Amino acid sequence: MVDPGLMALAGRLQGLCLERQLTVAVAESCTGGLVGATLTAVPGSSGYFLGGVVSYADRAKVVLLGVTAEMLAAHGAVSAQVARAMATGVRQRLGADLAAAVTGVAGPGGGTDAKPVGLTYVAVADARGEDVHRWLGSGDREANRTASVTLVIESLIERAEQVSDADR
Amino acid sequence: MVDPGLMALAGRLQGLCLERQLTVAVAESCTGGLVGATLTAVPGSSGYFLGGVVSYADRAKVVLLGVTAEMLAAHGAVSAQVARAMATGVRQRLGADLAAAVTGVAGPGGGTDAKPVGLTYVAVADARGEDVHRWLGSGDREANRTASVTLVIESLIERAEQVSDADR
Repeated sequence: MVDPGLMALAGRLQGLCLERQLTVAVAESCTGGLVGATLTAVPGSSGYFLGGVVSYADRAKVVLLGVTAEMLAAHGAVSAQVARAMATGVRQRLGADLAAAVTGVAGPGGGTDAKPVGLTYVAVADARGEDVHRWLGSGDREANRTASVTLVIESLIERAEQVSDADR
Repeated sequence: MVDPGLMALAGRLQGLCLERQLTVAVAESCTGGLVGATLTAVPGSSGYFLGGVVSYADRAKVVLLGVTAEMLAAHGAVSAQVARAMATGVRQRLGADLAAAVTGVAGPGGGTDAKPVGLTYVAVADARGEDVHRWLGSGDREANRTASVTLVIESLIERAEQVSDADR
């Protein structure tokens, strides 16, 4: 049921993390669990994937990830600041080496001039800090979600390749 | 990317919850996020789905859901007791009307005589308490996961149909 191309990408992340003994956690808004579903479609994923949070409602971001109500009010749920806070929050709670977070407007509803459908932020965090990427998808809901999952896994692969023992 | 039959089932749950103004949260182990991914594949799902927890590792069950280390040691992660505790934990944390949890042995590894590949527990909780269903799948990893998602959504539909205002 998971896209074969995405499963291959998940397999690459798994191989890299098992080889380097890195654990991974994720926090997902717009993808609703699709990143976790993709990573765990690969047998043996429990060797590195710890789990995460599907923070669809703002309350889930606050209660399960420690994002503050002030931050949500100031920047909105779809923002670089919230993506960073989600990644940091899930990484700390699960004690993971690497964490990724994604928040975006999947569509078809919910878009505004300032935050159109397809706007997506992906953050990756490790012991050194966080990076965040902004991305604007032009597809429909399913295409935007699939592209977001791809971006999350690619960002985790990129960060996993950079991690050295000194960073743990 | 989500199975059309599962999306139709998710659409039925969504219609029912929007009509009855019920909110839903989920806690997933063996499905790794696939329940959330399925529910949120339907546009408008943010109207009732709050999110949840992907508790792949035991630590995630403890830290994010309040399952106790004693319960995990006594019954194992794949047990009726842990399924109930996961459902109750995510329901309370997110303040949802209904919550479901799933824990199982997706395979191909991880099975034992007592807990074979395909063994799955699904719990549903609302203000009245929890129900738990035991199910033994005979398929491969992907088939077991898809069947588990179906069982979770069907259990939520069944419970949503029973909820009356007095139960809130």
